Amino acid sequence: MQIDILTLFPSMFGGPLTESILKRAQEKRLLSLRLHDIRNYATDKHRTTDDTPYGGGGGMVMMPGPLIDAVEAVRGPDRAVPVILLTPQGRVFTQRVAQGLAQHSRLVLVCGRYEGVDERVRQTVITDEISIGDYVLTGGELAAMVLVDAVARLIPGVLGARWAADEDSHAMGLLEYPHYTRPPEIRGLRVPDVLLEGDHAAVERWRRWEAIRRTWRRRPDLLLSAELSAAEQWFLADLAEQDAPMLL
Amino acid sequence: MQIDILTLFPSMFGGPLTESILKRAQEKRLLSLRLHDIRNYATDKHRTTDDTPYGGGGGMVMMPGPLIDAVEAVRGPDRAVPVILLTPQGRVFTQRVAQGLAQHSRLVLVCGRYEGVDERVRQTVITDEISIGDYVLTGGELAAMVLVDAVARLIPGVLGARWAADEDSHAMGLLEYPHYTRPPEIRGLRVPDVLLEGDHAAVERWRRWEAIRRTWRRRPDLLLSAELSAAEQWFLADLAEQDAPMLL
Repeated sequence: MQIDILTLFPSMFGGPLTESILKRAQEKRLLSLRLHDIRNYATDKHRTTDDTPYGGGGGMVMMPGPLIDAVEAVRGPDRAVPVILLTPQGRVFTQRVAQGLAQHSRLVLVCGRYEGVDERVRQTVITDEISIGDYVLTGGELAAMVLVDAVARLIPGVLGARWAADEDSHAMGLLEYPHYTRPPEIRGLRVPDVLLEGDHAAVERWRRWEAIRRTWRRRPDLLLSAELSAAEQWFLADLAEQDAPMLL
Repeated sequence: MQIDILTLFPSMFGGPLTESILKRAQEKRLLSLRLHDIRNYATDKHRTTDDTPYGGGGGMVMMPGPLIDAVEAVRGPDRAVPVILLTPQGRVFTQRVAQGLAQHSRLVLVCGRYEGVDERVRQTVITDEISIGDYVLTGGELAAMVLVDAVARLIPGVLGARWAADEDSHAMGLLEYPHYTRPPEIRGLRVPDVLLEGDHAAVERWRRWEAIRRTWRRRPDLLLSAELSAAEQWFLADLAEQDAPMLL
């Protein structure tokens, strides 16, 4: 997969995109990340890319000219390539959206300043708008990094087979069960016996039920779309009688 | 505000935390960011911080010992300091949550690998858990950067007064209105006349209505908690008759 990122701050991407999974994905040539400085598409000698808003008010708006030119130059003639603006006004990013994006061989990401991109950029070259959550960030750069990280992990071969399986449980929409490692006791807190007894079926059942319990208590909204067996639905009904969700 | 970040990958933070708003906030001494390598709290000669999970299965779990020691050393004796684990299992991060966190003089952020932190870390030193969205990331680092960016912008003095006002509209829970800057026409698309005519009251009204229209079409869920005047409620009722929300 090739991901092109258009930004006014290419240097922000130095740390995050060169560590861990993303580094490995690029070394294995499963992922090619290219950064493009929007300022290179400015047309005046001061390399201006923003201007005051029509109608007045605070802040600056990113000019349509340089941004449209940058997208067209980077995307090339193939209009089927998704050109995604990172903006709080976009559709909400979820694991399902990440799975959809991972099917493409190319993505172009446009990092607006959240203060505003000229509306006509949307109308001409943007094909999709994505928000990573209902909060205000300084710009689209961190949102682009989050999207790249979540999508890159889903490219076949980037993670080992075991991880891929792990992800399925997330795709099914439950929170994860509790994890434990050595030592067996710390600060008076012990690892649950079931995890020490070597009965794999019992471990699997415990984990699945703890995942349901945790999801019920913390994010009952997620259970609306989770896939539960009949036994699990009974377990959930029991929980619902005993235990009100925490309001987080 | 002082924010301490505990991570296994301090170098990931190089780019994002040294640009733009966060750079300025630190230069003005409104924000002090400190990175702490969890590996420095490992107790064996290999500096091990993770181990295989009890009960089997894929992946590694962050060991409780080094992490609990790291939090206690960095936090110090004041148990009132929020210690926040970034995890998909946490409460969902929103602008309102950011506003709450901005009231504190100190925060400690713990970047888990999402594959798992030993449950007993939660039970001993974590006071809050936050998720930036319903997707799977490689680790808590990008989530911590997102949180720091969103919170730092809310510290008084970090942004100018004009921006602070701008944020209120987000706090009220609407998407932003469309922005326009020069040129007045590009690719056959013109700036709306109302923005060129200099009638400030008309501009304000247009912007407010466009924000409501956009929120209705893209994120009708947000309107449940938006504060609308009587006239705006009529406008919304009209919209609802003409125009179904896009299902994004």
